[in-house]
Amino acid sequence: MTTVGILGGGQLARMLALSGAPLGLRFLVMDTAPDACAGQFVPMVVGDYRDEAALAEFASRVDVATFDFENVPAESAQWLSERVPVFPNPRALGVAQDRLAEKTLFRKLGIPVPDFADIATRAGLDEAVAKIGLPCILKTRRLGYDGKGQFRIKSAADVDAAWQSLGAQAQTVGLILEAFVPFERELSVVAVRGRDGEFRAWPLTENWHVDGVLSASLAPAEADAGLAETALEYARKLADALDYVGVFALELFCRAGQLLANELAPRVHNSGHWTIEGAETSQFENHLRAVLGLPLGDTRMLGHACMLNWVGELPNAAPVLREPGGHWHDYGKSPRAGRKVGHATLRADNAAALAGALQRIGDALARGAQTAPVIRSLQA
Amino acid sequence: MTTVGILGGGQLARMLALSGAPLGLRFLVMDTAPDACAGQFVPMVVGDYRDEAALAEFASRVDVATFDFENVPAESAQWLSERVPVFPNPRALGVAQDRLAEKTLFRKLGIPVPDFADIATRAGLDEAVAKIGLPCILKTRRLGYDGKGQFRIKSAADVDAAWQSLGAQAQTVGLILEAFVPFERELSVVAVRGRDGEFRAWPLTENWHVDGVLSASLAPAEADAGLAETALEYARKLADALDYVGVFALELFCRAGQLLANELAPRVHNSGHWTIEGAETSQFENHLRAVLGLPLGDTRMLGHACMLNWVGELPNAAPVLREPGGHWHDYGKSPRAGRKVGHATLRADNAAALAGALQRIGDALARGAQTAPVIRSLQA
Ligand SMILES: Nc1ncnc2c1ncn2[C@@H]1O[C@H](COP(=O)(O)OP(=O)(O)OP(=O)(O)O)[C@@H](O)[C@H]1O
Ligand SMILES: Nc1ncnc2c1ncn2[C@@H]1O[C@H](COP(=O)(O)OP(=O)(O)OP(=O)(O)O)[C@@H](O)[C@H]1O
Repeated sequence: MTTVGILGGGQLARMLALSGAPLGLRFLVMDTAPDACAGQFVPMVVGDYRDEAALAEFASRVDVATFDFENVPAESAQWLSERVPVFPNPRALGVAQDRLAEKTLFRKLGIPVPDFADIATRAGLDEAVAKIGLPCILKTRRLGYDGKGQFRIKSAADVDAAWQSLGAQAQTVGLILEAFVPFERELSVVAVRGRDGEFRAWPLTENWHVDGVLSASLAPAEADAGLAETALEYARKLADALDYVGVFALELFCRAGQLLANELAPRVHNSGHWTIEGAETSQFENHLRAVLGLPLGDTRMLGHACMLNWVGELPNAAPVLREPGGHWHDYGKSPRAGRKVGHATLRADNAAALAGALQRIGDALARGAQTAPVIRSLQA
Repeated sequence: MTTVGILGGGQLARMLALSGAPLGLRFLVMDTAPDACAGQFVPMVVGDYRDEAALAEFASRVDVATFDFENVPAESAQWLSERVPVFPNPRALGVAQDRLAEKTLFRKLGIPVPDFADIATRAGLDEAVAKIGLPCILKTRRLGYDGKGQFRIKSAADVDAAWQSLGAQAQTVGLILEAFVPFERELSVVAVRGRDGEFRAWPLTENWHVDGVLSASLAPAEADAGLAETALEYARKLADALDYVGVFALELFCRAGQLLANELAPRVHNSGHWTIEGAETSQFENHLRAVLGLPLGDTRMLGHACMLNWVGELPNAAPVLREPGGHWHDYGKSPRAGRKVGHATLRADNAAALAGALQRIGDALARGAQTAPVIRSLQA
């Protein structure tokens, strides 16, 4: 009997556990919140990731550990990895936690990135804005998620406000300035690498964000074979360079047929949720297979799939459940503004059928704004 | 927040809970065994189904109740149904628990059955054997499963032994004598009926038993459209007659192109396990949708699927995990002779690919005897 420990007990841990149960696995999650939603199905250790006693208890009860939450302190991941096998390895986690380290690695590997600069002082910011040009985005290097810890600088007049908003964090989590990419599309590669270095990727996915939070994903993305191949090649290089084990997502901007890497998410990823019903093997199962050294599962798609994120609160499930390819995912969380509380996946044999289903759901739930860009992409 | 109570905490309850979590459901199982495998993921009430205090606790903690185990005492189901909604209803459960009642209903509905007779005494057995002819099978009316509580009477000389083996049960669970059907194939219809009477069925499934226990299932069964339609019609009639709500299986013998009903399983069924990966909606999710009055999900298949049962102990998982359409299900039970401990499902786009996968798995696991009949059917 193998027990997999997961640091973080949110919906990612919950879906990992649900997909790992058929493999005969047991789970233990660790989270700071006693009501973390994975705890509805698996036992929990409640505690801060820096609390050594809690971490020690967690370590003593698991055979291998992985993450639902990427911002576990690097020292905690390191401490844990000296006691149990931890995948992905703490170095890969550390790189992915730091926008500066990851962009530096991307560049070193020949993966194009938006222009960027490390920002330590107000004077450094002025200098970087002058060099990178406008518009640009000031971001915290660490601990950002769902677009939090970001400030868009559209004109020179915004620099003060940007520094006022984030400057204090230059000495704590660090800051990075990035060129703003007027992208046409956002894409992601969700991929998995095994303990033996085997690499597999799901088809390229197109993503839409609203207020910095993922709103919808579509797979396969409408893209020529060359672009998809390039994206997969970037993901493979990155995984090999980090000796990465498990599932990760590489987020990309696409502009004028060129790809620019945005960031690496060192875990199962929201843009891969469609794989539960839309692929032969889900990202959740393959993450566990990788972490346990089992053969990786097939990543091919079954038709076309679209994932719609439910943020803040769940809409009425019935219109989704009534669709032939409609699948519902309620994370068992209480509603709260900005919180990811669930998603729906629509699966169909062809693009036209998927567009039809999205149209009906957008209408029934009065969420046309969420479905319209996906429908446009399907009809392109 | 809705809590679904399940009487019985085996692999069926476990798979129900895993498939119901994404619907935002919570679960509570009741089982006599504290180590029932569903308890690895959901809370349990441990107690005998006749223990009113335990049943009352269970009832007080659930919003609706259903079954993983069909042999819950009829009075317990009745008692419970006076406190919470119970699906399927206790009458349907009662009929399905009794081979005599179910065969009598089949006949009344015009569903052909093997010749049968109620047996109360040794003299009655002799009389029935003379009338029904040889070979025949003496079975307990109630509490049989996986071929237990059966005695095959091949010649007149076996009658004594049959009575010796089962006669004492004539006064407790009752006995029935059935004509032995020299069937060519065993088939099942797995179907679901909603609270509003909506009926849906998965494609007809062919089944193979070894020592009375299901060994393999194949869907869709190789059958002409007329036969499949007849089988579905029988299932629909039965469900309507019983005002059945939820998933059930109708087991059928096929002989010379004719169908004879064997039995009704009033729950999700082993011959429907392939629906987890092989159908748009699984039997587990649709059972819950039905029980909760939600819209039923699409029952169409995605390609071809074969389920291989693991009885007694699990074989090596790797050959299954290595197959592109290979899916593993370990129920988290300890090994024991005759115990269902897991299954594998193989999915493929066409029959030839599925036959190839089965051949490789049969070879790798030295289980050619289990896979060969399925491969033959695929090649027919
Ligand atoms: N350099 C940029 N140019 C243009 N848009 C950007 C840039 N950086 C971020 N964005 C926009 O903001 C979104 C969120 O940014 P980013 O992925 O860096 O933040 P995050 O907080 O880590 O988000 P997530 O948790 O969704 O990955 C991006 O998906 C994109 O829409
Ligand atoms: N009348 C019959 N003629 C021929 N074979 C039979 C007959 N009844 C039962 N069998 C064989 O025995 C198997 C098990 O019988 P049956 O389904 O009645 O028992 P069970 O204990 O309820 O099994 P399960 O739990 O698998 O449904 C059948 O699938 C079939 O292979």
